[in-house]
Amino acid sequence: MMKHDEPQPWRVTDSRYVLDRKPYMVLREDTVMLPNGTRIDDYFIFEYPDWLNTIAITEDGLFVLIRQYRHGLQQVHYELAGGVADPGEAHLAGAQRELLEETGYGGGEWRLWVELCPNPATHTNTCHIFLATGVRRIAQQDLDGTEEISVCLLSVQEVLEMLRTGGVSQALHAAALWRYFAENGTPGQPAGTTDFEVR
Amino acid sequence: MMKHDEPQPWRVTDSRYVLDRKPYMVLREDTVMLPNGTRIDDYFIFEYPDWLNTIAITEDGLFVLIRQYRHGLQQVHYELAGGVADPGEAHLAGAQRELLEETGYGGGEWRLWVELCPNPATHTNTCHIFLATGVRRIAQQDLDGTEEISVCLLSVQEVLEMLRTGGVSQALHAAALWRYFAENGTPGQPAGTTDFEVR
Repeated sequence: MMKHDEPQPWRVTDSRYVLDRKPYMVLREDTVMLPNGTRIDDYFIFEYPDWLNTIAITEDGLFVLIRQYRHGLQQVHYELAGGVADPGEAHLAGAQRELLEETGYGGGEWRLWVELCPNPATHTNTCHIFLATGVRRIAQQDLDGTEEISVCLLSVQEVLEMLRTGGVSQALHAAALWRYFAENGTPGQPAGTTDFEVR
Repeated sequence: MMKHDEPQPWRVTDSRYVLDRKPYMVLREDTVMLPNGTRIDDYFIFEYPDWLNTIAITEDGLFVLIRQYRHGLQQVHYELAGGVADPGEAHLAGAQRELLEETGYGGGEWRLWVELCPNPATHTNTCHIFLATGVRRIAQQDLDGTEEISVCLLSVQEVLEMLRTGGVSQALHAAALWRYFAENGTPGQPAGTTDFEVR
């Protein structure tokens, strides 16, 4: 690994809240001084609670995904079930609660799969994504009024093709699913080439 | 694939700008009506330009990554070089410009690798991530005053280990790199298992 000079933190010289509508919009504006002497008067930071999502796979090997209208892109894509951690709620318990509420699936074996940030430059929160295998339909959906969610069961081949054709737009979810295929290989196509020619 | 009812778009009944400081902070507040009749008075949308990033690999097979302090997490992680598309700038040209400015590397063969959204629920923009192979150091870094960026060359094994240990926190970059390993396999560990047991 090439040696490098590690970037140093910025110094916050002033900070104020522009909006405070917890938990969906807490916008902070910092005045910061960079190590090189550059001053940024209005650097905006979004303070969010942590997010929780789950790659849920049934006993039959089907992936439990959801479809939901997203008003930023004004489009519907495939997503992992999940949501916002309640105050003081354990990550695993929150991920299990969100999967059950949004899809009615639960049970199985759970492990932490990957932790990533929506945007380290502007967001304060982390997304904790779990992998649940052997889940079963154990309840009905339990959605609040702002949620309209369709549940979809996809085979592993369908998930891979869907990823390759842009079926997932949320980068956090795509990262967790692509790691799944990186660690486990892709169906019908043994990866494991070591010359790393890109297909 | 299980049949499902496709979620329908929301209807915007009112819209106003809360902040307009292009290109870094354009915050829109919409009043929306959901198909189920639920009304949300203050749904916040961030209007951003598209983002451009590149997985850059040298002629020797080393990945050109950067390290940069990110004030949201107040941490330094590995990232793909990249930035914001200039108005009217072609995505490929912008990605090549950003790689050259931030790392001094260029040339090689370029292809679009993956397109994802930072957050389809709240962001309007898409991140276009390219894969450049055979790049060479052809210039010095050309950074603006708000950028303090270290350039790092990592082997493919180092990149994989770094991903597995949380060295990349930006989900967009992690997704593109995990897809690289999903499509090409992981060094020293032929993936390609088809029972999809998670290691």
